[in-house]
Amino acid sequence: MLEPGGVGLRTRLFQIIFESDTKAGKAFDIALAALIVLSVAVVMLDSVAAYHERYGLLFYGIEWLVTVLFTIELGVRIYCLQTPGRYLKSFYGVIDVLSILPTWLALFFPGAHMLVVVRLLRTLRLIRVLEMMSLAGQGRLLLEALRRSRGQITLFLFVVFMVVIIFSTLLYMIEPPEAGFTSIPKSVYWGIVTLTTVGYGDITPITPMGQFLSVLIMLTGYSIIALPVGVFSAEVINTLRAERYSDESCPGCGHARHEPDARYCKLCGTWLNEERRDPRQTS
Amino acid sequence: MLEPGGVGLRTRLFQIIFESDTKAGKAFDIALAALIVLSVAVVMLDSVAAYHERYGLLFYGIEWLVTVLFTIELGVRIYCLQTPGRYLKSFYGVIDVLSILPTWLALFFPGAHMLVVVRLLRTLRLIRVLEMMSLAGQGRLLLEALRRSRGQITLFLFVVFMVVIIFSTLLYMIEPPEAGFTSIPKSVYWGIVTLTTVGYGDITPITPMGQFLSVLIMLTGYSIIALPVGVFSAEVINTLRAERYSDESCPGCGHARHEPDARYCKLCGTWLNEERRDPRQTS
Amino acid sequence: MLEPGGVGLRTRLFQIIFESDTKAGKAFDIALAALIVLSVAVVMLDSVAAYHERYGLLFYGIEWLVTVLFTIELGVRIYCLQTPGRYLKSFYGVIDVLSILPTWLALFFPGAHMLVVVRLLRTLRLIRVLEMMSLAGQGRLLLEALRRSRGQITLFLFVVFMVVIIFSTLLYMIEPPEAGFTSIPKSVYWGIVTLTTVGYGDITPITPMGQFLSVLIMLTGYSIIALPVGVFSAEVINTLRAERYSDESCPGCGHARHEPDARYCKLCGTWLNEERRDPRQTS
Amino acid sequence: MLEPGGVGLRTRLFQIIFESDTKAGKAFDIALAALIVLSVAVVMLDSVAAYHERYGLLFYGIEWLVTVLFTIELGVRIYCLQTPGRYLKSFYGVIDVLSILPTWLALFFPGAHMLVVVRLLRTLRLIRVLEMMSLAGQGRLLLEALRRSRGQITLFLFVVFMVVIIFSTLLYMIEPPEAGFTSIPKSVYWGIVTLTTVGYGDITPITPMGQFLSVLIMLTGYSIIALPVGVFSAEVINTLRAERYSDESCPGCGHARHEPDARYCKLCGTWLNEERRDPRQTS
Repeated sequence: MLEPGGVGLRTRLFQIIFESDTKAGKAFDIALAALIVLSVAVVMLDSVAAYHERYGLLFYGIEWLVTVLFTIELGVRIYCLQTPGRYLKSFYGVIDVLSILPTWLALFFPGAHMLVVVRLLRTLRLIRVLEMMSLAGQGRLLLEALRRSRGQITLFLFVVFMVVIIFSTLLYMIEPPEAGFTSIPKSVYWGIVTLTTVGYGDITPITPMGQFLSVLIMLTGYSIIALPVGVFSAEVINTLRAERYSDESCPGCGHARHEPDARYCKLCGTWLNEERRDPRQTS
Repeated sequence: MLEPGGVGLRTRLFQIIFESDTKAGKAFDIALAALIVLSVAVVMLDSVAAYHERYGLLFYGIEWLVTVLFTIELGVRIYCLQTPGRYLKSFYGVIDVLSILPTWLALFFPGAHMLVVVRLLRTLRLIRVLEMMSLAGQGRLLLEALRRSRGQITLFLFVVFMVVIIFSTLLYMIEPPEAGFTSIPKSVYWGIVTLTTVGYGDITPITPMGQFLSVLIMLTGYSIIALPVGVFSAEVINTLRAERYSDESCPGCGHARHEPDARYCKLCGTWLNEERRDPRQTS
Repeated sequence: MLEPGGVGLRTRLFQIIFESDTKAGKAFDIALAALIVLSVAVVMLDSVAAYHERYGLLFYGIEWLVTVLFTIELGVRIYCLQTPGRYLKSFYGVIDVLSILPTWLALFFPGAHMLVVVRLLRTLRLIRVLEMMSLAGQGRLLLEALRRSRGQITLFLFVVFMVVIIFSTLLYMIEPPEAGFTSIPKSVYWGIVTLTTVGYGDITPITPMGQFLSVLIMLTGYSIIALPVGVFSAEVINTLRAERYSDESCPGCGHARHEPDARYCKLCGTWLNEERRDPRQTS
Repeated sequence: MLEPGGVGLRTRLFQIIFESDTKAGKAFDIALAALIVLSVAVVMLDSVAAYHERYGLLFYGIEWLVTVLFTIELGVRIYCLQTPGRYLKSFYGVIDVLSILPTWLALFFPGAHMLVVVRLLRTLRLIRVLEMMSLAGQGRLLLEALRRSRGQITLFLFVVFMVVIIFSTLLYMIEPPEAGFTSIPKSVYWGIVTLTTVGYGDITPITPMGQFLSVLIMLTGYSIIALPVGVFSAEVINTLRAERYSDESCPGCGHARHEPDARYCKLCGTWLNEERRDPRQTS
């Protein structure tokens, strides 16, 4: 993928920043993660009026400190890469730029400081740290199982939407305006609040007929969840099994699905590794 | 199933409208899906008072445009079929007629325009498009697993209703009227709102005894969901496994559907793997 | 189990009432189910003030009609049994008596009419009908899987209670009285409303610390459900597999778990039915 | 682990208190469990103002009785152990001390009586009783499956937090203050209330855009639960299967833990079923 842009210092920096095999690389990852969490915490706390009044200036200082550190870090990243352009256009590059842009822009355009969501995209930078901690590798199983159950889950969502649209429109027609079903989109909002079993209670049916129909949508939402869970469980089980068993079939009986450390077929006792000699044949 | 009603133009139209193997057929499907989504969106937005005031006329125009297009489409469908009567009585035919009827009826009976739910049945027309995109085929697994777990799920729903009816009646008797448990049907509504974990909060117990009984119904609802999910997961796994059964028939007795790891036919004992030697023949 | 008490009429009545193999037996079951549903519906509708006022007398009539019919039915049941005493002490017998008792008692004690819950126990009579429709047999799988996962589920409930008690007490100490956490039992009620994701909203935390602790209990409730579902799914899968496969091992290779219709071992081709002669040995 | 500190009386007491094989040991466990439940019930009921007024003195008496009994029990535990220091520093020892400390401290510092949560930690003492009833042993399966799915579940929680933080901040920016989204932490509280499908309804979006975004977070929360459930189910199944691995070791190489359907050792190809003849030896 990415290659260090030279030898000596640039390679050394590349190892620290982009890899995590070395001690310095690991320390860098932990420091980066801490900085991201600190900066996200500051953005969140600064939104509380009471804290903003008392610690506003401190938060502002930390915000700038973090931004400057992130900017330096981005500079070093670009410096030690052979093809910085490709990096800047990659997912991680875009996130890196987005996480410092709002603060710099606020110098020139006061309103830009309001881009608080963009600043929170810094959270996404944690993905890189996770990946280095080989945790993201765990996601491959989830993604593989999701990919396999994609068709069924699309179908499931389609059925969910169908049920929600039809029932919500019925409620819109049945319920009096004071119940809150003032338009179909609002009824659909209620429908999803109900089907997903969130149930805020800001809009609730008040006529017996409306309550009866709501009961149907609730029972649907409550039990239909078995569909994606069942399909996904089955696919996780299949993916795990496929990962844990060899796919090569036994030359003796044709049985596939041997455990990864199997040397002889568990069913017919045939030597499985055709490239080497069976130790039993020496005797 | 359905057959084109002749050759030339009618066969060509049949391929475009009823099939999706050709380029024109696929384009037709996509255009149809877009038209359906547009028309459903218009119905929904038109129900918002503010939008109706401002864009009412535009929505009315789109509604008529879509209806005329759907009517022409239905005409062509009938034209290019050998047995249009059978089509009109089929599921898709009924949906097709229902999705244009309310608008036409509104010309003669002003009240018919209120059949807004019927107009939203157009959403069901998307099933046809889904089927052509071979997505509905994915539903076969879900349906097969549902069919297998039908008995258990009926039983589960029966237990759920039993629990709800008994607890709801108890709450109706215990709680004072101001808590909202004014009749048994209303208590049952509360019971299902609670058991499905929707929890609107429009009716809540206020006596300690009522709250204690509610806790029991909540814990039931929270944990009993494991039953249908567990049964359905197991059946999805079984269905997936049955699909992976070998389809090659036994050279001895012709029986197909052997388990994936079978080496000998379970019915006549014949060696199944014709490419390899039967180990029994050494003797 | 139960035996008819004689021949002729009593045996004939026994077949109709206690069995469902004959045409008359099936008709009786359906009529009984309809009567139960009717009587439960009447009890529920009678609790609605508006319906009680208008149809009260009709409901009262139906109630008596059903009670008389159930009483006659119970009489016939007792008449055609050899050991009526054993029946009256069985689960079904108790339910049969309980479902007619409140109405009769109301003749003498006006208050007894309030035993509305007891009258709704009639719903339990449906179990018998279900059993005859061989649906209850489906429950054996659920019960077997429940029995196997009993230990884990007890443990799960214990952990749930522990979490709820500790967090609820913390909330009780942190939150001001106006938030609704007025006593520990009430806080525990809130805790279960929250952990089971019902979330009425009748009691909600208002301090930041309380909201933070609530978030922890919510996340626990949201993800801990994976435990019983996972364990139960696994046990259903095991139970289904054990049911569908024979447990006898092959005399040739010792492989167990053959499909129920297997005649030869799928792994070594050995004849499985030791009591009969292998047809291959004729040649 | 723990050893009795001598013979005679100390060993006898050790058997009663620390083990549960003897009749006296079992009786002690049951008495202890009853005492814990009683004492927790008293703490909870005492927090209800009405009960405190009427039974306050009785509760106070029970509290002291239980504390004295627990103190004596702790004394005996220490007396009959060889290394009481190690016990006091163990998990159970700390719980034992914590469950009597608040009441004793309240003698000297009146405020200490408020340490009501600490007193409820007595509930944790039930774990010991559970363990003796061999129920905690059931937990090993759950823990093993949790350990295996740890990586995926961490990832899942990370995704959940990411979704919540980004959507909550968007809602904070979109919604007017009167909707309740007054700061980002409060919005995050709302986000978790919504994603976990608790849905109190104390804070709800009121703008159409806010409601649309809420719908997205609800659908995410509703369907993403399939991930941990699926992974955990798969791991429970794997753990159960691993448990069913044959424990007999191979006569050739001594390897144990063969798959249940293995006929030949996967490592050395030796015939595993010593009671039957190896079919290969016919030649």
